[in-house]
Amino acid sequence: MIGTEIENLIKLLAKLPGLGPRSARRVALQLLRQKESLMRPLANAMDVAAAQIQTCQYCNNLDTHNPCSICTDQRRDPSLICVVEQIADLWALERTGFYKGYYHVLGGTLSALDGITPEDLSIPTLIQRAQNLNVKEIILALNATIDGQTTAHYLIDRLENCNVEITHLAQGIPIGGELDYLDDGTLTTALKSRSSF
Amino acid sequence: MIGTEIENLIKLLAKLPGLGPRSARRVALQLLRQKESLMRPLANAMDVAAAQIQTCQYCNNLDTHNPCSICTDQRRDPSLICVVEQIADLWALERTGFYKGYYHVLGGTLSALDGITPEDLSIPTLIQRAQNLNVKEIILALNATIDGQTTAHYLIDRLENCNVEITHLAQGIPIGGELDYLDDGTLTTALKSRSSF
Repeated sequence: MIGTEIENLIKLLAKLPGLGPRSARRVALQLLRQKESLMRPLANAMDVAAAQIQTCQYCNNLDTHNPCSICTDQRRDPSLICVVEQIADLWALERTGFYKGYYHVLGGTLSALDGITPEDLSIPTLIQRAQNLNVKEIILALNATIDGQTTAHYLIDRLENCNVEITHLAQGIPIGGELDYLDDGTLTTALKSRSSF
Repeated sequence: MIGTEIENLIKLLAKLPGLGPRSARRVALQLLRQKESLMRPLANAMDVAAAQIQTCQYCNNLDTHNPCSICTDQRRDPSLICVVEQIADLWALERTGFYKGYYHVLGGTLSALDGITPEDLSIPTLIQRAQNLNVKEIILALNATIDGQTTAHYLIDRLENCNVEITHLAQGIPIGGELDYLDDGTLTTALKSRSSF
């Protein structure tokens, strides 16, 4: 006989990605054990986020402002737009601190299997942004998956008349990677794109 | 450049058991994607739980009432108290719907390694409850681990003068278990405790 309130909490927690009924129960107990230090602050953070976070009309990033703080950052290089699949990819690139241009979040990749067509992605706004004369280079930072590469080729076609250079991320051996554990495709690419010291 | 509000949400989510920084980011994005259907209801459920859920003064169960709805349930058998380590164990037993007595949540097990002594567990209240003349049997439903069994033996000593029968859960082959995959200890116990058809 678990109380309705706890049942409800567990049911909602189980909807989070990566959590099932068992881990949701574990999380609920942890929350109830740390009411003041964890449950209340988390509930509050979620309330604040739900009320304030919105999607940027230009790049589709999530922020408390629209346009987002990246799109309104004047110190960034206006000649560069980096196209990513998801906001998580934008976050990953931002964590490196290396890239200083702007972003464009597609919201996914083309996928015949999942029925995702160009209309489902934010491609028209990308074309529009690419036509801005300031933009010189569009970096397609898509995943090295079949769907990611299909989407890249589709975008290259669509951006053909935009008079921008289109680039992609370098492929090769990841830092710390051991040859023995890498797949043949990566090794072949790394060998083909080898460079001199 | 992730906004402060999202950073804060991710930091709190990463404190939940089983979630690291990467899965916390994934959960945060899912929440932001489903603001109305998931984030707000979950924040609300957590607020309600934080405000209303308390620990039962008798059995240490969590409920909106104190004493909890199990302890105040008159239809249960007052001669039975089932001792468990954690509230999750109480929930597991309640899910079976088989047991109709009362519970006592210890809050852990004795552990020399983790420095958990009898004073850290709710043993005095258990002794007190065991001295109630209605109580005839105390079921020690502790985990079949070293710490669980150490605690069971300690409790048997402490309950010696209480004039109650002390029982433990049956040990043997789990339903659906395959002999080939079971450890030697379980097989030996199952063989020793064999019964006729």
